[in-house]
Amino acid sequence: MLNIGIIGYGYWGPNVVRGFTAIEGAFVKAVSDTNPQNLKKAKTLYPHVLALPKAEDLIKDKEIDIVAIVTPVSTHFDLAKMSLENGKHIFIEKPFTRTSPEAKELIELAKKKKLMIMVDHTFIFTGAVKKIKQLVDDGVMGDIYYYDSTRVNLGLFQSDVNVIWDLAPHDFSIIDYVIKNKPVAITAHGMDHFNRGHENIAYITIYFEGNMMAHLNLNWLSPVKIRATLIGGQKKMLVWNDLEADEKIKIYDRGVNVDDKEGLYKLLIDYRSGDMWSPRIDRTEALKIELEYFVECITKKINPINDGEAGLRVVRMLEATNESLKNKGKIVNI
Amino acid sequence: MLNIGIIGYGYWGPNVVRGFTAIEGAFVKAVSDTNPQNLKKAKTLYPHVLALPKAEDLIKDKEIDIVAIVTPVSTHFDLAKMSLENGKHIFIEKPFTRTSPEAKELIELAKKKKLMIMVDHTFIFTGAVKKIKQLVDDGVMGDIYYYDSTRVNLGLFQSDVNVIWDLAPHDFSIIDYVIKNKPVAITAHGMDHFNRGHENIAYITIYFEGNMMAHLNLNWLSPVKIRATLIGGQKKMLVWNDLEADEKIKIYDRGVNVDDKEGLYKLLIDYRSGDMWSPRIDRTEALKIELEYFVECITKKINPINDGEAGLRVVRMLEATNESLKNKGKIVNI
Amino acid sequence: MLNIGIIGYGYWGPNVVRGFTAIEGAFVKAVSDTNPQNLKKAKTLYPHVLALPKAEDLIKDKEIDIVAIVTPVSTHFDLAKMSLENGKHIFIEKPFTRTSPEAKELIELAKKKKLMIMVDHTFIFTGAVKKIKQLVDDGVMGDIYYYDSTRVNLGLFQSDVNVIWDLAPHDFSIIDYVIKNKPVAITAHGMDHFNRGHENIAYITIYFEGNMMAHLNLNWLSPVKIRATLIGGQKKMLVWNDLEADEKIKIYDRGVNVDDKEGLYKLLIDYRSGDMWSPRIDRTEALKIELEYFVECITKKINPINDGEAGLRVVRMLEATNESLKNKGKIVNI
Amino acid sequence: MLNIGIIGYGYWGPNVVRGFTAIEGAFVKAVSDTNPQNLKKAKTLYPHVLALPKAEDLIKDKEIDIVAIVTPVSTHFDLAKMSLENGKHIFIEKPFTRTSPEAKELIELAKKKKLMIMVDHTFIFTGAVKKIKQLVDDGVMGDIYYYDSTRVNLGLFQSDVNVIWDLAPHDFSIIDYVIKNKPVAITAHGMDHFNRGHENIAYITIYFEGNMMAHLNLNWLSPVKIRATLIGGQKKMLVWNDLEADEKIKIYDRGVNVDDKEGLYKLLIDYRSGDMWSPRIDRTEALKIELEYFVECITKKINPINDGEAGLRVVRMLEATNESLKNKGKIVNI
Repeated sequence: MLNIGIIGYGYWGPNVVRGFTAIEGAFVKAVSDTNPQNLKKAKTLYPHVLALPKAEDLIKDKEIDIVAIVTPVSTHFDLAKMSLENGKHIFIEKPFTRTSPEAKELIELAKKKKLMIMVDHTFIFTGAVKKIKQLVDDGVMGDIYYYDSTRVNLGLFQSDVNVIWDLAPHDFSIIDYVIKNKPVAITAHGMDHFNRGHENIAYITIYFEGNMMAHLNLNWLSPVKIRATLIGGQKKMLVWNDLEADEKIKIYDRGVNVDDKEGLYKLLIDYRSGDMWSPRIDRTEALKIELEYFVECITKKINPINDGEAGLRVVRMLEATNESLKNKGKIVNI
Repeated sequence: MLNIGIIGYGYWGPNVVRGFTAIEGAFVKAVSDTNPQNLKKAKTLYPHVLALPKAEDLIKDKEIDIVAIVTPVSTHFDLAKMSLENGKHIFIEKPFTRTSPEAKELIELAKKKKLMIMVDHTFIFTGAVKKIKQLVDDGVMGDIYYYDSTRVNLGLFQSDVNVIWDLAPHDFSIIDYVIKNKPVAITAHGMDHFNRGHENIAYITIYFEGNMMAHLNLNWLSPVKIRATLIGGQKKMLVWNDLEADEKIKIYDRGVNVDDKEGLYKLLIDYRSGDMWSPRIDRTEALKIELEYFVECITKKINPINDGEAGLRVVRMLEATNESLKNKGKIVNI
Repeated sequence: MLNIGIIGYGYWGPNVVRGFTAIEGAFVKAVSDTNPQNLKKAKTLYPHVLALPKAEDLIKDKEIDIVAIVTPVSTHFDLAKMSLENGKHIFIEKPFTRTSPEAKELIELAKKKKLMIMVDHTFIFTGAVKKIKQLVDDGVMGDIYYYDSTRVNLGLFQSDVNVIWDLAPHDFSIIDYVIKNKPVAITAHGMDHFNRGHENIAYITIYFEGNMMAHLNLNWLSPVKIRATLIGGQKKMLVWNDLEADEKIKIYDRGVNVDDKEGLYKLLIDYRSGDMWSPRIDRTEALKIELEYFVECITKKINPINDGEAGLRVVRMLEATNESLKNKGKIVNI
Repeated sequence: MLNIGIIGYGYWGPNVVRGFTAIEGAFVKAVSDTNPQNLKKAKTLYPHVLALPKAEDLIKDKEIDIVAIVTPVSTHFDLAKMSLENGKHIFIEKPFTRTSPEAKELIELAKKKKLMIMVDHTFIFTGAVKKIKQLVDDGVMGDIYYYDSTRVNLGLFQSDVNVIWDLAPHDFSIIDYVIKNKPVAITAHGMDHFNRGHENIAYITIYFEGNMMAHLNLNWLSPVKIRATLIGGQKKMLVWNDLEADEKIKIYDRGVNVDDKEGLYKLLIDYRSGDMWSPRIDRTEALKIELEYFVECITKKINPINDGEAGLRVVRMLEATNESLKNKGKIVNI
């Protein structure tokens, strides 16, 4: 039985607590939050759980095996470092850290201490993303031409990060998981309409090895919520609408046949427009699968796919994005 | 009665012929197309119309008052110049010309000859765009924060232009018509997946005077057709989905209340999330309204809003986009 | 070359005229309408066509081979009879006639005169209905359990018929074409909210041979337009949404596995919920296909599938529906 | 503090337990279920709760004030009667009972014992239904012409009831709450495709006092889930799509203007087709509101709107529906 301590019971923390509660082989021993209101809510729903105002007390509890850090990114490094130093495996919210040196230091420390880091890239455990990865890996899609994501909604404006640090980690972690081509350069444009020092709208373009590009449309000022991704492949194209209850993924037998028999300067471009197919998607809650996987990784000493290195790769893309943004869309190599 | 000659009976030409046919005060006298198949189609549907293989014969017909040029952009300048020189008013497809010097020369020539130029910016005559302009002009939207358009579909790949010259003129002409802020700089990224010398995907960001930006997502490789525009204003936000039969425009009483009473460093950001409202939209065919308007402009000697100058402004944005694209997203001032 | 005369240039007539105009082997010689406004419209678009105020003059024109009757149902019998007596093939709007004796008399007369009758059951020439028929005929759907159609919109209130005579012929002709089971009984409920003597809402249930039923929800008072049909089969189920531009038909690998190994009183009901598949649908205009088919039928002396007999079967269902409606939903055998 | 005991921890029971857990002034003391698996689940999530295999032990627990009966309808009467006899208020799943005599007996018993009965008509506590009631009560809709509900999905086939007893209580309770006209007669048609003794498809028509009707389309064999209701009023019409995340209710300024100035036989029917408006809907969970309301009713000795009488009215409609179904759609007066 692994004992779990969760730091942070605000927006996402309750889901992590509920998630670990339902897993065999895990026991939620303590929850900590600096906000007494949040702590009270935890205590009402889970009367048997230790409710601690100070994260430090949780981290230093000797019976705890895993510390889940579900707090703003600015606090990640210190909490994670202390947890590792106290011999805890860590489950940590995305983005992993503010900077890549921080991420590297934590990875080194975990390696030295033989502890596991799992960065909460929840999306790669959804049925939808796993299905997309399978379609790409099995060659169904053919070579990938583009990944185009629209991830917009109204708020929540966050005080310590811009819209990129809030929303882009989702796509960056999905791209890192699904796309084999390596990203080589990033460019970003954005605007801060309220002079808060943080962009509320941003457009990111990523160039990859080979003939591939990605685009992210991120917006905290949209009247409607959209979570739609188009992925164009040589053989098939797909639309992933994450807000659909059913039919989240639609795969289109559509594409372009390029015929060069008449020579380079007279390409024949011919359209295929065939059937559409929407595969059945596993609906098991992603967080549940991810937490069970973490418990399994620790028990069987397997390195998780969403380990510190994966977290670091996402942080690197965030850093490049920020640099481009500050330099009016300059192309930044990764 | 104004006599009309239409050059080009390919994709859009038949609509222009049908449109002029239904207008009182206009009579379609001649159609010209270099493709005999197209000419035959015109002749079958309109047995009384003169079907001419050579545009020159149409342009030099002394009874013709208006020449409608519905041909690829590369042919626009020569056909338009000859028409103006022969004393014809011209109705010309968007984009107006390949270059801004060409556009200026035609504008000058028309002025000298006291002839009218109307550039076919059809969209600004739709019920939807007119409603949006009214909402902006009446101050219902408040200051505009952003204009974000997704205009994607599968093909048609065109041999002489890239996806930008095909699709962006729609948005550029709408922005020119609706948005009061002036565009100051453009940046564009794109990719040509088939080595045809023309991008099939492009992402354009436009910076405006004041705190406003626009974004265009253009794609010839999308499995689905999307024509969706988000416009965020200080007071209201709207979604324009042009593929909806009803409810093309939805206006959301949603936004951000920024309260700075606690000083610059402690802004209170507060969300409004109220009702949605979808106004009834005039469904009269835009092309019909536009052609009637052109006949009226000529009869009453009024300069049309979509005159050569409007066409030139769109061409300038296209030129800036091309320049940015060729320089890896360099910011190009307009 | 077959010469065509069209009676009625109101709502649907212009489509029939346009349709015949585009067909090789057919020539629209005359149009007739008692309304001078309508006649004028026809004359403007087709200056070469004979525009006749009196249907009789058109019917008696010796050069005309086919008379298309596109008028209210109350005029069908007289116009059709006169046309057949004058040796014309007839293309006639649905529903064929007001009563089954009228339909039978016309069928007899046509047989005697060796003339063709085609009833304009346009829907069975759509790509969607043809695809559904193919899926049923090929056994893909398995036994059909139900056909459930919602066909509602606002207006048009018609002066001479109720909502059933306006909308039900569509479904009746589709059912007649697609479903192999024979209808055995009909029941209908409805309401006339404005005391006009004609129901504006109606609900029709049809019992078929075997374990099958159909339901029609017809409404002239709906704020939104819906054209949605669910068809449940033993092996597959489908949704046909005729207002969708793409993906009109979605076929679901969903159903019920009934396992009776534990005996009649302990059936195991088990759900299948697999993939969804949306086949590519032929988008050719149905009316075009239907009119070409009629010309072909006449030329090759083939009896059309939508002949007078098909028209009669639909009229019989309408009669039974009316009888049930007048008797408070009494079950009426067909 | 009211102590709660919940009988039944299957499909809906966990929601009732979770709901009462979160209410101040209520304490979940015991859960009972005859299925040990279900009991174990309850115990894992709520270690402090008494988990009882026998409902009787829960009912006879002297500290318990409210018994929530979340079991199949066939068990309702016995459990409710025993609970009332033991002095407990009861919260009971819909439909209240199998028969109206059973419902009347429980109502009498509760009255005698001065205990409260709340029937779980959850839907009338949703933001959507409360908004609809407000629109009707405030006269915004005008006189109601029709209520038309489509409530279809795949499964769950239930062993002890047909599709009507499963799904119709939702609409019956909403109609009872929202519509002022009294229902006077019911007719129902349905089919049992698997010879299980229970219909899996049913169509119900209800006639009301005045010029109003309701229709229910219920189906356990639909490949897609639909929860859509059209309500047509003299002044406004609305669409309630309960599966929409936002914009659940759309109100259309559409309708019919009937002008009888030319006399009864020459009514002018004129269409209004104006704007659409989607009001913001309260998203608080309905069950939470309902349970808090029950606690408040007991504390303040207020009779709930969804009391035994409301439950009885729904049972009477179910009985009439069953009688019609067994008599091939006979019209049954209520």
